[in-house]
Amino acid sequence: MNRTIFPTNKILQRADKEQLLDQRGIAIWFTGLSGSGKTTIAIALEKELHANGLLTQMLDGDNMRAGINNNLGFSNEDRTENIRRIAEVTKLFVNSGIITICCFVSPTEEIRNTARTIIGAADFMEVFVNTPLEICEKRDVKGLYAKARKGEIEDFTGITAPYENPLNPAIEITNNFTIEESVKKIIEKINL
Amino acid sequence: MNRTIFPTNKILQRADKEQLLDQRGIAIWFTGLSGSGKTTIAIALEKELHANGLLTQMLDGDNMRAGINNNLGFSNEDRTENIRRIAEVTKLFVNSGIITICCFVSPTEEIRNTARTIIGAADFMEVFVNTPLEICEKRDVKGLYAKARKGEIEDFTGITAPYENPLNPAIEITNNFTIEESVKKIIEKINL
Repeated sequence: MNRTIFPTNKILQRADKEQLLDQRGIAIWFTGLSGSGKTTIAIALEKELHANGLLTQMLDGDNMRAGINNNLGFSNEDRTENIRRIAEVTKLFVNSGIITICCFVSPTEEIRNTARTIIGAADFMEVFVNTPLEICEKRDVKGLYAKARKGEIEDFTGITAPYENPLNPAIEITNNFTIEESVKKIIEKINL
Repeated sequence: MNRTIFPTNKILQRADKEQLLDQRGIAIWFTGLSGSGKTTIAIALEKELHANGLLTQMLDGDNMRAGINNNLGFSNEDRTENIRRIAEVTKLFVNSGIITICCFVSPTEEIRNTARTIIGAADFMEVFVNTPLEICEKRDVKGLYAKARKGEIEDFTGITAPYENPLNPAIEITNNFTIEESVKKIIEKINL
């Protein structure tokens, strides 16, 4: 193997980072209802990748809304800006060769297309966690469905706002899959 | 070496990433006038770190203003939001164990303190590239000083807006330093 030679004043490129890490940057974009299992699968996926020596970055509502998007609310305008910033941050990580795992309800084709366009289709792998609403609502891990049913949350996806199924997801995970099977399916797809 | 054991449902932590990469995340924050040499030194620093097998991420006006901050102008409010978002992105990278190299004029103590507070003082290494205005203006790589002198750019740092010298930078690089010496000084300081 030859050492990479850098021309003077040329900023390091994505390929240099990917060579260093011996992996390819990609965005794995989980979409699905609240309570569908996105984060649970994502955490298991991240652990498995890490155990294989791969560098990952997880982005979700918790670290994005608490940080870079802490000045955004839930108006349509702010939701659009929320996803735009998430996608731009994802792009920076992907361009550093990092496997970037994004967990966002991202309920509409428009929102997911915004993310896909910013990140670049070649680096965007859509994972649709297709768990029936009834199961998500029964789980209600965060108590959000109960609140939405009482009218305490406006525009709650699945209850008072629509969820549009992805038209052509790279992977669809149904409720029949165990977490391990889900992780295996994703890893096979990204071909590590 | 033991394999790290992850408790169920525990998201990977910074320490896990740092162990994987065998390096420590840190923000190296270059401040100085336009034309002072921030980017030139940063590029040389990044190459040197990369050649030593270390993972870096460079953030500068080019990739930030073209991406996540492409909806911000140059009003005071937008400049504050600009630096806030940069610092939040930096924090995400540092929390992934990455050596994050930030090149921004960041002309005031207030701006730099905003960044330091968000990133965390322990992870924030301020590098003051202290090149005299006369030299920066003579270089005028981007032709900005000429425009500022003609009044074509408002509030241009060094000409029509103040640059406040850092009070206590971790490193000060003066014009006597070669690029190689500057890089060496920084690497000694971060103690790799």
